[in-house]
Amino acid sequence: MVILGGGFAGLNVAKGLKDAPVSITLIDRCNYHLFQPLLYQVATAVLSPADIASPIRHILRGQPNTRVGLAEVESIDLEHRRVHLNKGGLSYDYLVVALGAGHSYFGHDEWERFAPGLKTIEDALEIRRRVLLAYEEAEWESDEALRQAKLTFVVVGGGPTGVEMAGALKEIASKAIPKDFRFIDTTTARVILVEAGPRLLQGMSEESARDAKRQLEEMGVEVRLEHTVTDVREGEVLLGDERLPAGNVIWAAGIRGSHVVRSLGIHLDRIGRVPVAPDLSLPQHPEVFVIGDLARVDDPQTGEAVPGVAPAAIQMAKHVARIIQRQSATGNYPQRPSFRYRDKGTMATIGRNRAVAAIGGFNFAGFFAWILWSLVHIWSLLGFRKRVFVMFSWLWGYLSYTKNARLITGDFEARKTGDAREKSDHC
Amino acid sequence: MVILGGGFAGLNVAKGLKDAPVSITLIDRCNYHLFQPLLYQVATAVLSPADIASPIRHILRGQPNTRVGLAEVESIDLEHRRVHLNKGGLSYDYLVVALGAGHSYFGHDEWERFAPGLKTIEDALEIRRRVLLAYEEAEWESDEALRQAKLTFVVVGGGPTGVEMAGALKEIASKAIPKDFRFIDTTTARVILVEAGPRLLQGMSEESARDAKRQLEEMGVEVRLEHTVTDVREGEVLLGDERLPAGNVIWAAGIRGSHVVRSLGIHLDRIGRVPVAPDLSLPQHPEVFVIGDLARVDDPQTGEAVPGVAPAAIQMAKHVARIIQRQSATGNYPQRPSFRYRDKGTMATIGRNRAVAAIGGFNFAGFFAWILWSLVHIWSLLGFRKRVFVMFSWLWGYLSYTKNARLITGDFEARKTGDAREKSDHC
Repeated sequence: MVILGGGFAGLNVAKGLKDAPVSITLIDRCNYHLFQPLLYQVATAVLSPADIASPIRHILRGQPNTRVGLAEVESIDLEHRRVHLNKGGLSYDYLVVALGAGHSYFGHDEWERFAPGLKTIEDALEIRRRVLLAYEEAEWESDEALRQAKLTFVVVGGGPTGVEMAGALKEIASKAIPKDFRFIDTTTARVILVEAGPRLLQGMSEESARDAKRQLEEMGVEVRLEHTVTDVREGEVLLGDERLPAGNVIWAAGIRGSHVVRSLGIHLDRIGRVPVAPDLSLPQHPEVFVIGDLARVDDPQTGEAVPGVAPAAIQMAKHVARIIQRQSATGNYPQRPSFRYRDKGTMATIGRNRAVAAIGGFNFAGFFAWILWSLVHIWSLLGFRKRVFVMFSWLWGYLSYTKNARLITGDFEARKTGDAREKSDHC
Repeated sequence: MVILGGGFAGLNVAKGLKDAPVSITLIDRCNYHLFQPLLYQVATAVLSPADIASPIRHILRGQPNTRVGLAEVESIDLEHRRVHLNKGGLSYDYLVVALGAGHSYFGHDEWERFAPGLKTIEDALEIRRRVLLAYEEAEWESDEALRQAKLTFVVVGGGPTGVEMAGALKEIASKAIPKDFRFIDTTTARVILVEAGPRLLQGMSEESARDAKRQLEEMGVEVRLEHTVTDVREGEVLLGDERLPAGNVIWAAGIRGSHVVRSLGIHLDRIGRVPVAPDLSLPQHPEVFVIGDLARVDDPQTGEAVPGVAPAAIQMAKHVARIIQRQSATGNYPQRPSFRYRDKGTMATIGRNRAVAAIGGFNFAGFFAWILWSLVHIWSLLGFRKRVFVMFSWLWGYLSYTKNARLITGDFEARKTGDAREKSDHC
């Protein structure tokens, strides 16, 4: 069988089939599994890429039934049961498609140049580069208006990523770097969080949303609800008639399913996800499963789509692994169970001692939620070494108020052209 | 006064003038100071860039007489005492030029595409990418000859960097990754260290050189002394008549002083270094000092050029800081002292429990030298956090036989064209 994608979904299918009588090939275009919930900490100079990413083949080294390949998926041929890669083809008996999602600019792909999103390590390093460069340039800028624009950071999208980025950017400005500059007062840097809807953290409770907004505003983040970005250009963002001079824009607004599934010839939902049957297989193709952020599956009780979060991806993976395990053992499995998403709680961090969490009907905010968030994320990291190192990094940063990874490296501009953008969807 | 370069030399001049009545501007094209002696460990997936680099302005944050600027140096106008940057000009009373050195391909710059050097963080990440990718490609390569070529690593140059890279590459192949692959036996990977001269580690003792060669060969590295690379092409290296099919070449052979000093209009030495007066100033320009890898200064006793190593750069920096301090305090300093390099010992690491060290006429090899090397390098890192984290990373790697930072990220190919190469000289 073939698994496409080594994210939470794909990796956990492979792990769930460790002892099954199947021969697995897992394909990803990256050689590592990325712990995406902490990617914003790479972008904000807290962690290094290696703190939150591990080689997929190293994770699966003790699993003899699985081989790992580094390749780009080009298309899927359902009829002939073949996957086309940039380096040849693969036949499958079972196929699990877990290619994830990339950014969506709602038809304005030209904004991407000025407003990078946050899905890959390269994205995170590019955002880090731009954020740190903004202060360097402001320090040497003599024009006051330009200097203010360079010190204005706009985060578009009020979901967890947007909230976390906005909080972290404000913390850099107010806590980590003020003493390092001679000419600018970095505490005057503006961080503006723009959300088109009436509240933050859609998908979490109303109370969490209010708490998050209050905590962000206490930190000095300007939260603009019900504001829609109408244009992003070099050095400015337009919110309808309002012109915001801003040298730095970060896109955390929309996602779009991996383009590879267009080759399935199936009607996708509005944001490019694949509608799947209740067992997560493709209608008419019980041998093909689509899971993770790329799957569109509605909760039978609430009627709402299962959210694109790591716990949902892991639960889907376990569901599919159980089906394949049983079917490959018995040869037959006529009545497959339906997938049910169990929401064990949602949380988002905002800054030092600040977070929101909603667990089993209870809402927490502030220090306790922040400790909870930290523990859950440390615990979820793969590997003891990463847990220890990330914990120490956080402890160190907490005590010293510094960000350790303030390096301006690389320049990924070149990558950011048409074709490259498409390719960066799923890694 | 103006300092060009934030390496060991430039940074230590600034630090040495912490309490002097001078106003310092330090310019570098990177925002960080890089601990270059450990750069090969970033290339070989042991450490992350942030483990060995710190923002220059953060290091100097407590020094009110110093401001830091991120800029590219274009030329130096000795007559008008001005430095031209890519973002404007700076006048100076004193100037310290500490721009370091880049690679030299001995007139064959076309080899750089196939044989990246190791001077910057981007270089290190590019080498890491190529090394890890070689195994990934070999795993899926069906042609046996091509597969062997992909698993052949040639390191050109038998100085400390070459020796360290060769040892680390062999260790990856034989210790860190064998269990992660299904189709290839990574322990069969060849690592070939090519040196044109009759011995390794020119500049260290004969005994160290012999010990290093023996230890490398015990690990399985093929050491080729008195072999000269005559061509580097895609997938092969020529050593005279001998053709080595090799997918991976790393250049550790030659250095060349930063191209900026060509604008001085002074006769440079064979490898582009600036011959300086005994006090490290420019002849006829007592207000300009050239230090670090870029300075050509001969030891008055041995007549040999002071080597381009970190301790020499730091000693030069302290020498110059003392001169400037006294002269700016007294207004006059007619009889400046000559610089004397004190060789406190040289060392190179080779692999697990293997190193060579020569200190005060004594030669050490093996475990003791390796412990010594580790302690000296931990101790030399700037900042307590880095010391703790690098020590734990090494301890972890030692006990687990793994390399933590095995991430294939970015693709710096685009950067590697004519102009970019010139620019990457000094950072």
